[in-house]
This record gives sequence, C-alpha cells and structure tokens, in this order.
Amino acid sequence: MTDTVQTAVIGVTGYAGAELARLLLHHPRLKGKPPVFAGRLDEKEAARGGTPLIEIHPHLGGNNGASGLRMEPFTWELLTRWNVDVLFLATPHEQSRAWAPAALERGMRVIDLSGAWRLTEAANRAVYAFEDDGSAQAVATQAKAVYGMPELYRSQIAGAELIANPGCYPTSVILALKPLVAAGLLDLGAGIIADSKSGVSGAGKAPTAKTHFMYAADNLSAYGVFSHRHTGEMLEQIGLAAGQLVFTPHLLPIPRGILSTIYVRFHEAQTRQSIAKIYQEFFAGSPMVRIYEKTLPQIQYVVRTNYNDIGFQLDASGRRAVIVSCLDNLLKGAAGQAVQNMNVVLGWGESEGLE
Amino acid sequence: MTDTVQTAVIGVTGYAGAELARLLLHHPRLKGKPPVFAGRLDEKEAARGGTPLIEIHPHLGGNNGASGLRMEPFTWELLTRWNVDVLFLATPHEQSRAWAPAALERGMRVIDLSGAWRLTEAANRAVYAFEDDGSAQAVATQAKAVYGMPELYRSQIAGAELIANPGCYPTSVILALKPLVAAGLLDLGAGIIADSKSGVSGAGKAPTAKTHFMYAADNLSAYGVFSHRHTGEMLEQIGLAAGQLVFTPHLLPIPRGILSTIYVRFHEAQTRQSIAKIYQEFFAGSPMVRIYEKTLPQIQYVVRTNYNDIGFQLDASGRRAVIVSCLDNLLKGAAGQAVQNMNVVLGWGESEGLE
Amino acid sequence: MTDTVQTAVIGVTGYAGAELARLLLHHPRLKGKPPVFAGRLDEKEAARGGTPLIEIHPHLGGNNGASGLRMEPFTWELLTRWNVDVLFLATPHEQSRAWAPAALERGMRVIDLSGAWRLTEAANRAVYAFEDDGSAQAVATQAKAVYGMPELYRSQIAGAELIANPGCYPTSVILALKPLVAAGLLDLGAGIIADSKSGVSGAGKAPTAKTHFMYAADNLSAYGVFSHRHTGEMLEQIGLAAGQLVFTPHLLPIPRGILSTIYVRFHEAQTRQSIAKIYQEFFAGSPMVRIYEKTLPQIQYVVRTNYNDIGFQLDASGRRAVIVSCLDNLLKGAAGQAVQNMNVVLGWGESEGLE
Amino acid sequence: MTDTVQTAVIGVTGYAGAELARLLLHHPRLKGKPPVFAGRLDEKEAARGGTPLIEIHPHLGGNNGASGLRMEPFTWELLTRWNVDVLFLATPHEQSRAWAPAALERGMRVIDLSGAWRLTEAANRAVYAFEDDGSAQAVATQAKAVYGMPELYRSQIAGAELIANPGCYPTSVILALKPLVAAGLLDLGAGIIADSKSGVSGAGKAPTAKTHFMYAADNLSAYGVFSHRHTGEMLEQIGLAAGQLVFTPHLLPIPRGILSTIYVRFHEAQTRQSIAKIYQEFFAGSPMVRIYEKTLPQIQYVVRTNYNDIGFQLDASGRRAVIVSCLDNLLKGAAGQAVQNMNVVLGWGESEGLE
Repeated sequence: MTDTVQTAVIGVTGYAGAELARLLLHHPRLKGKPPVFAGRLDEKEAARGGTPLIEIHPHLGGNNGASGLRMEPFTWELLTRWNVDVLFLATPHEQSRAWAPAALERGMRVIDLSGAWRLTEAANRAVYAFEDDGSAQAVATQAKAVYGMPELYRSQIAGAELIANPGCYPTSVILALKPLVAAGLLDLGAGIIADSKSGVSGAGKAPTAKTHFMYAADNLSAYGVFSHRHTGEMLEQIGLAAGQLVFTPHLLPIPRGILSTIYVRFHEAQTRQSIAKIYQEFFAGSPMVRIYEKTLPQIQYVVRTNYNDIGFQLDASGRRAVIVSCLDNLLKGAAGQAVQNMNVVLGWGESEGLE
Repeated sequence: MTDTVQTAVIGVTGYAGAELARLLLHHPRLKGKPPVFAGRLDEKEAARGGTPLIEIHPHLGGNNGASGLRMEPFTWELLTRWNVDVLFLATPHEQSRAWAPAALERGMRVIDLSGAWRLTEAANRAVYAFEDDGSAQAVATQAKAVYGMPELYRSQIAGAELIANPGCYPTSVILALKPLVAAGLLDLGAGIIADSKSGVSGAGKAPTAKTHFMYAADNLSAYGVFSHRHTGEMLEQIGLAAGQLVFTPHLLPIPRGILSTIYVRFHEAQTRQSIAKIYQEFFAGSPMVRIYEKTLPQIQYVVRTNYNDIGFQLDASGRRAVIVSCLDNLLKGAAGQAVQNMNVVLGWGESEGLE
Repeated sequence: MTDTVQTAVIGVTGYAGAELARLLLHHPRLKGKPPVFAGRLDEKEAARGGTPLIEIHPHLGGNNGASGLRMEPFTWELLTRWNVDVLFLATPHEQSRAWAPAALERGMRVIDLSGAWRLTEAANRAVYAFEDDGSAQAVATQAKAVYGMPELYRSQIAGAELIANPGCYPTSVILALKPLVAAGLLDLGAGIIADSKSGVSGAGKAPTAKTHFMYAADNLSAYGVFSHRHTGEMLEQIGLAAGQLVFTPHLLPIPRGILSTIYVRFHEAQTRQSIAKIYQEFFAGSPMVRIYEKTLPQIQYVVRTNYNDIGFQLDASGRRAVIVSCLDNLLKGAAGQAVQNMNVVLGWGESEGLE
Repeated sequence: MTDTVQTAVIGVTGYAGAELARLLLHHPRLKGKPPVFAGRLDEKEAARGGTPLIEIHPHLGGNNGASGLRMEPFTWELLTRWNVDVLFLATPHEQSRAWAPAALERGMRVIDLSGAWRLTEAANRAVYAFEDDGSAQAVATQAKAVYGMPELYRSQIAGAELIANPGCYPTSVILALKPLVAAGLLDLGAGIIADSKSGVSGAGKAPTAKTHFMYAADNLSAYGVFSHRHTGEMLEQIGLAAGQLVFTPHLLPIPRGILSTIYVRFHEAQTRQSIAKIYQEFFAGSPMVRIYEKTLPQIQYVVRTNYNDIGFQLDASGRRAVIVSCLDNLLKGAAGQAVQNMNVVLGWGESEGLE
C-alpha cells in the first residue's frame, strides 16, 4: 500500500496544521506523493486557494520541495479525483462533525484532530454542544471512531476508518495515569489532582487578548478551573468517575510544551522500583513514551519531539506520588500523534517520520 | 495653581493610557483631585462608561484609591463641569486632530500623545494623510503646538496650550543626536544610521498577527525599512535633510523598552572626554537624561523609569562613534514624558511624580 | 522616633538586597537618613567596600540620590558608630545565624530575610543543618524571633527585636490557607496540594546551570519534590502535621513572580460567598492582601507590588476548591515584606513606602 | 567512501557540540557508524569519560540509538584504533591550535569550529593572542586551512584536509555582502554598518553573569563595540580594509538565532530587480541560502534550520540599501555549516542530513 498512499490536510493554516504539513512532507513513506493542503472551509480561507504554502508558513520554505506547494481551493470532487487515502482534519470541532462522515462516505480514512469524535458519553460531550448530537449519522460515525492513542488502543487503531486524535492536555495526563489505574494501585477515593501548564500555541493562532504577547509574557495564569472541556476526555480514558479528578490548566509564557504535575495516593506503599516496573511493562513496545527512573522530565527535553516523557517521585511513606508528564502540545499533543496514528493505521513503523 | 489642577485622560484603555493613569494617581501634586478617565471614543469604548478602571487594568488595583475610579461616559459637558485644566489625549491620530482644537476652544491645556501635531512640514505629515491638513483650524492649531521634549524646548513648553508629546523612537534618537548636531560635530553628508529595537508594547494593545505571542516570542524582525513614519519627526527635530538619516525599527521579544544603536561620523577626531563634555553640558539641568561616560546603557537599566540613558564608544581614529540610547517606550517614550511636560507647563519640578 | 531611624542592609548585592535598597531609598519616613549598605561578608564582597551602589545595581542610578551611595567595608564598629537602629540581613542562612545575635547584643533590631530563625521545631530545622542548633545562644535568639507575617502576627511584630522574614513560597501558601484552617473548614485528612511556580529571581543571583538563560527560557521544571525546605515553614505556620501538605515548586521562565495553585477539600459544602467572607474577615485591616471574589489573580497583577492576591474557585459540589495565590517573590516574598515588618515594628503605617 | 566514514566530535558538551551530535546521529550517510564523542580535554571533562550522552544532553535521548552512546575518555590511540576519518573540533581556540595539527598528522580530516584557523592575516589574529602564532607548525597548518563557507569556497573545500568553520556573526554578514562587493556595486568609502543581534546560546554554556536569565531576559545590550574579534574574519572574507566596516553585536533575549541589519551605499542607483539578480546568480547552486525578493526574513524563519536567509530594501533613490541576513547561530552559524562542509569534503550532497 505504501507507494500509493495519498494524504491531504484540511486546516493547514493553524499551528497543528503547519506541523502536520512539515511532518508529512518529510515522511519517508510519502515521498513520492506530496500531500494536498487546504485551509479551513470558511469563506476567507476558501479565497486562499492558490496561496503558496510558504506564504502562510514561511519556515516550511526550502523543505524538500514545499516551496512548490499551494493551498488548494477545496472541493470533495478534487479530493476524490486525487484519490486521497488518508484525510487529516485540523479543523474546528463543528466542521469535523460534518466533514468526517462526508469523507468516510467517500471511502477515505479520517484522522480528526478536533474534539468532535473523542467522547463516548453524552454527558461529557455536552460541553461541546454539538448540534447534531444524537442524530443517526452522528451515532453511526461515533461508533466507528477509535480514540487515537496507540499506547492504549494500538490494535483497534490498526485498520480503523476514523481516528479521534486525543487532546493535548489529556495525552499527558492519560499516559501518566492509565498504567497505575490499570494496575489497581490508586486510591481513587482520595482524588487525583492534575495541575497542567501549557505554552501559548495551545491557545490557537487567532490573535486574542490572551494570546497577545503583553498578556502572556512574564505571566502565568490559571483558567478553566473545574470546567475545562478536556476533563471528560481524561475521565473516560482513564476510567474515572466525575469528581475523582481535578484538572487545572495554566497558560505558560513559552511557545510550546505541556508539563502536567499529577498528585496521586496509593492503596499500599510503593517503591521507586515497583512504580518504574509498572510503567516499563505498560509501555513496552511503545516507542514514543520515555520513562525516567531517576530524575524528572522537563519541557525542554520534549519540545520538537513526539515523545511523552514521564517521571515520578514518591514520598517517604511510599503512599503518595507526584508524577511529572511532559510533551510537545503540537506534536505528541496533536500533529505528531496524528502521524503516529496514520503509521499504525497503515501498518507502518509506529515512529516513522517522527524522529 | 497647584491645588486646583484637574486632569483627565481620554484613551485610558491602551498601554500608554494605563501608564498615565498610574502616574497621575500617584503624582504628589494631584493628590486632592483624582484624574478623570475615559476610553477612546468609538462606540465600543463609549459603552464602557462606568467600567471600573481596575477591570481594564487590574494591576492598578489597590494603588491609592484607584479601586474606586471608573471609566466615564465622555461628553464635553462633563469635562467642562469638572473644570478640567489639563487634558491628556492618548487617542488615535485622527481623533487627536479633531479633539485637540475642541479642547483648546474650551480653555483646557492639551497634552497629545499621538502623532497629530508633532510635524511642522507638510511633506513629513503626508504619511499620516490627515483629512483636515491645510484647513484653517489645523493650521491655527499647529501654530500653537510645542514639541514636547523639555530637554530641547523647556521654555516654550512652560505655559504652552498644546503639547505634541514626542514619539517613542524619536525621543531615543533625537536626544542622542541633537547635542552633537548642535555642536556642529557631525559629518552629515556621511549619513547617520539609527538601528532601533522596541518591545512589543510599542505595537499597541490590539491583538494582531504581529502582537501574537507566537509571532513575537523567540523572534526578531525589522519593519518599516525606509518608510517608518517616525522618520520625519527625527529629521525635523534634529535638523536633518531627507536622506541624511536611515532609521530601521525592529520588534524585540520583550514587553517594553527601546534601544537605539546610532552610527555617526565626525568632521574631526573626537575623544571620549570631548563627547562626554558635549552631552553633559547639553543636558545640564535635564534630570531625566543620564550620560554614561564609561559603559553602555541597556534596556534593563531604564525599564519602568522615565530616564533616557545615553552612552557611546569611539573607534580608534576618533572619527566614528556608536551611540547607544535607551528608554522605556511607555514612560520617557510616552506617558512619562507627558507627565514631565505637564510638570513643565505648570511650573512644577520637572521630575515630580516620575521617580 | 521617625526622624532618628537609621537603617542598614547587609547583603545588598543580591536581588532581595537590591529591592531593599530601592525601597529604603524611597521610603517617606527615611528620607533624612539614607541607609547604609554592605555586601555579603566573604572575602570577595569585603573587597567591594567602596564600590558605588549603582555599579552593582545600575537600575538604582538616579533614584533620589542613590548615585552617591557606596558599599561600605563592613565592621560592627561602623554600624555602632552610625547608630544603626534597624539592621536588615539579606545574607545566607549560616551568616544570619551568627550575625543576628551579634546585632541584637549591640541593641539593633534585626529583620532577617534568610531561613535562619523561621522555624521553631527542630525536626523542621534539620534541612538547614545549622551547626549551632541547640546551643544556648541559638535557643535564646530563637525565643526572641517573631515570624514576620503581619497578617498573622501584627501585634507580636510591633516592638519585636528579631523578625524572621518569611520565605517567598510560604508567604503565598500560608496566606491562602491560614484563614480556612483557622475557620476549621478544611478536611486536613484529605490532604492539601500546593503546586507553586516561581520566576528565576527566586533561584538567586549566582550564575549556575539552572539560572542560565538556555536552561530556564522556554522551559518549565519541577524540583525539590517532597523535599523542599520551605515545607516545614508552611506546616508550622498553617498548623499542619507532616504529610498533610504536599508542596511542589516549579521554575518558571520569567524574571519574578510566584503563583501557587492550591487544592483543598472542605468538611461541608461551601459557597463562593461563604469563602469570600472568611477571607475578607481574616484580612480586614491587612492592606497588602487583595481578595478576588469573581476572577482569579495572575502573576502580572502582582509583579512589582507588595500585594499578595488570592482568588478561588469551588467545584459544583462546594466540597472542593482550587485557590490561586500570587505575589512578587522579591517584594511580598522578600524585601517588600521586610519593609512591611519594619513599618509594623516601628509603629508606622503598614504599607508606607510600599505603594 | 560512504560506508566507511567514521566521525568523531571533541567538545560534545557545549551547545554546538550537542547540535553536531544530533546532526551526525541522524545523517543518512553515517547510519552504519555512530560517531564517537568526547568532551573538552580539561581534567573535569576527561573525568566524564563514560558519561552517557543523554545525561549531558537529555533532549538527545531516544533519537536513533543515542541512548546507548557514551562520552569516551579521549586518547589519540583510541581515535586511531577507531579509524576516525573526519574529526570535528568543537573546542576552545587554544585547544584547536594544538589539536588540529596532531589530527592532521594522524591522517584525519579536521573540521574545526573554533577561531583557531580562520584568519590569514597576523594583524587580525592578534585579538586571539595565540601563543604559537608564527611557529613553523602553525604556519604550515594555516596553509592547509580552507575557510569553510561552501558558498564561497566550494571547490577548495572538496578534498581539503583542514576546514576552518566560520564564525556565527561572520557567516550572516559575509553571505549578505560578498555578492555585492564581488559585483563591484558598493561604495566602500562610505562605509558599511553591520548591526547584529544574537541569541544567548552564542554566549556559550558556561554560567556567567551575562548568561544568567535575570540579565538576558527582558533586556537588550550592545557589546564589543569596535572591538569584537569576529570583525577581522569579515574584513578578510569580504575583502575590506580596516575601517570600512563597523560591526556591533547585541545580546538578544532569545535562545538562538542571529539577525544582522546591514547598511550599504551603491556607486550607482540600483533596483530591486538588479540586486535580486546579483544574489540569485551568486547563490545559484547554493542550497542553503534563500533570497527574499519581496519581504524580509526574520529569526523565526531560520531557527532550527541550516539556512541563511537574505532580504533587502532599497531607498527611493536606489543608492542605499538595508540588507537583513538571518541564520541559526548553532546551525548555519556552527554545527550545521560544519556538517555542510563535511558533505562537500566527502563529495556528498551539500545539504544531506541538514533538512
């Protein structure tokens, strides 16, 4: 299948779209067929058809022929004519709700980077207020969706039609907690705290009061306390009841990177060795997770990589731990994980094009 | 006059307006009469009448009673009723063109922070494309305007009705060059280069692609090469012909501060002592300019002060010099210099409320 | 007493020392008598006697005559001769252990910014490994020490001989938690999490691998997990048993500011109003604490102020809360609080010289 | 030759060394033979023999097997036994003076990143004060050295034994000016100004007062005015006499990247087209230089690439131009250019392993 795969990206104008473009242009399995790019499908973006990719993202210039690529004036006919096999949607949630079914119908595989198809429980989806929620089409599409975290669902992703690529914060928190919950070690009644900090690219490319340099620089602020919409995603994937996890995001004065500091209690005393073993076994065969057995990861170790780094520290009693989990929000937290999913879907090496 | 002075600020929502508010609230001569504040006079701002000042600028909270102040729904009647003596316009150029005459007519003194009244030559004003340029009212108003740089025009400012507060870049360049030009030392035919770098607050509070954290952080960019509208202001005040000065501004990834690196040639060889003497004599009696005789100033030395720091280095021949001139673009480059002008206008100590 | 108070600062070369110098030079009650400054008393610093203060801290230049001040080559005789009333020690812990008693003996009041005299329990002091711990002099000196947090110990501070100025992290955490603990609201068995983030000035002026721009910029890292020496100070002052509080500090890529995100559980459901009332009543009469009833504070609101801002958010059940507490680590977290303590000791207005 | 090339890096602990390690580990032509690494050869570094590479540079972990590599306790015997073909010296100038001849003697090709062998004129070398300057060995070694800028000396570099890899600032300035000087367009008598700004990685990994976050952040400072040792390198390579170029470096508050703003005068009026043509023709066949014909490059466009981007703007008369030249100081300004040189030396594609 390798030499016939044609990819396309809708929504290439944003930060995640730019990272996707960069990764796909360099992917060793896609060299013969450059991906096709289109902007978000509102009027303004549509008018951009024909815009050279390097005008929108000048840093892509000179990279293996990106200089010749242009934004295409999107139509479904074009995608069909180009025989697109894998369609990446780096689009707003509402657009992904409408477009994923349309693409599936045309026989494409879809990797959706939005929150449109991540949540299986209606209560958790409520924060998105999808207009089509509960419709026959939405129910059928949701049934096809696989949560795109290879470390948890590798076998289901292989061959899936629709991948719901995880959120950036949830990736860092789920990968840190799932092994401990799966092993039954955590005292869930005591509650889990996930105190997360993210760089500004996580807030999107639209210029707003909060993405203004004067607001973000030399500052730190908490937001979405007890109300951030990524919470439901964490609960579902880790397997927690509402109220068992408190998640607080903060806006860091850096371009990219997430660090989550996570506080847990164990039923019984643990040791550094016992916890390291749990993680090592859980992530055996997962090339994109690195476990730190002695020190703690930092944002600078993961920026511009697709790794999720996890370290931890136990208190003297062995009953409490602080876990630190880091990733690059545009890579393992978005575009990198999307490519990782494509690799798994197509049976390629999971980290191809990601190192 | 001291205990009866009432000030007002129009355009308090921007960065310069916020600094003005802070300075006026703490000014020792204004303690009895808190200033009056209003936003810019477009519809959106007008609707803000009644908004507590600390909602717009939370960092002003707790400062000597700022917590009780509100944005007022502006009308000329209100200003008249409050007996405003000194009106600060931190407004867009076009608004200042209309409002300065209106305020002068009502007997207020005006300190305008925009570029509306800084330029005496029509050729230099052309970049602003003022619609009323050449009208009788505009000509009459311009005739009343004094360029608000106390180090050059202290006596004219004292008692003036309308002060055209200088631009941020021009302040740093004019103060560095005027003493040398006045002394006749510079070989103007050889040309002067002013390579200036400014923090992001200079780009204004409106969220734009260029003020987005992701654009400004970890970056440096030149802009307005050979075309920045501050050039004319420098030519007029230093006394240069077009083409004798090349000015290149750059956007620095810091909140505030300007550093201008200026390259000049002398007719004859100079010494460190001869140049230091020129500066010291020129700025004798100017409390807000500091001359460095041995080292060079840096942005960190002037941020959050009203000082303009000047240092220099000569080459081995004594025929060339590099001059470094620094200021805080929101203080000596805007609100601080406006307060300094108010002090001179009213006969108060020039640096009162500025240390 | 006002017009006869003479202050001195030992350890003026560091960041806290520089802030102290700035505050004391501008303090309205100290105008007649400029403070005396000396560096830390190791050989290198002693050699600095005579160094103008503005060579060490250029940003102090021009501030009300700081330009004439010099570092003095310290001896006790000099301090005695100058009749120093209040001695600030911005010195390393070990030096403060030796020097506070020496100064008390000579009749000076001492405000010590180090950790030397903050802890009353030997178990908590163990992390400092003071060589003189348990000696008669140390016991006697500790007995005189008052923990310098006016919001908790105003009456004890008034007239005290020795003030142990609080740590930066503890100030932000204690002020946020003490009112709730005092009111008996917290379920201490459930544990409290304090996830704190500090700017780089908190790491001191010594150039190290961790204060290198390349390490700190664009990064975030946790450190001292379960082992930071500020933990004991929090336990003692809040009134918690070991294990009831988990404290995790992080290094932020900003110059100054601390934000602590604190997670608590209540015995019974609370409301926004009930919690606001607790805070407002506790801090009535405390001018340097600001309570946010609707929004959350951010670092940018407190930087370069002596305020500690506190905001909070309750979950839907009213049984859990996230509290956000911010301060400037060099002001309310160090030099500002030291001046606040001096004001209380001497019976002056608590916020004089701090606004 | 491809499949037998063995590389080694001395001085892998610094920033340039780390970039070299990363590039060589990923170089498509070196996959069979991982490079050998050693630290700088002082006592402290030597003791580091055996240290895993990822302990020194954690961000290299997980990259194609870097995790197994260790710092070797260097001896010449080891290098000989490993049959090292190409030796990279990322060492201090003095060490490179001694070690380049030693390596050449043993039949290795040497690519030296220091300033040891860049300068042919004794007057320009004086700033380095090499102890061995003028010795027979130094003269013989210098005679073998080729200045490692493929855009200027591609044919001489092919097959050279010793490459003097250019300095970071000089690369940005020489590439911008050489085409114009070679075309005879510049009025050299009018003088050229190169106002350069560099990120902090250019100042090296040693923690110093100037690399402290608190010094560099939120700041900008000029240094080495009229005295920076990169000046001689520019004069020699561009072909200028002393005094025809003024070079002023500044320290930017960013991790990496250099932007040079260069001011020139032409003998005759030029057009955008005429200048673009000069550049395009000069750099035809040079894959690592990008010419901007409409806009200006920025640091963010070149960071983490090996490109040198050049743009320009003419004044209305066509007689003056401002040229903006950008690169990543650790890549095109150091390690990237070193790999580019290796590619040319060995007859490989010039940009292999650099995209």
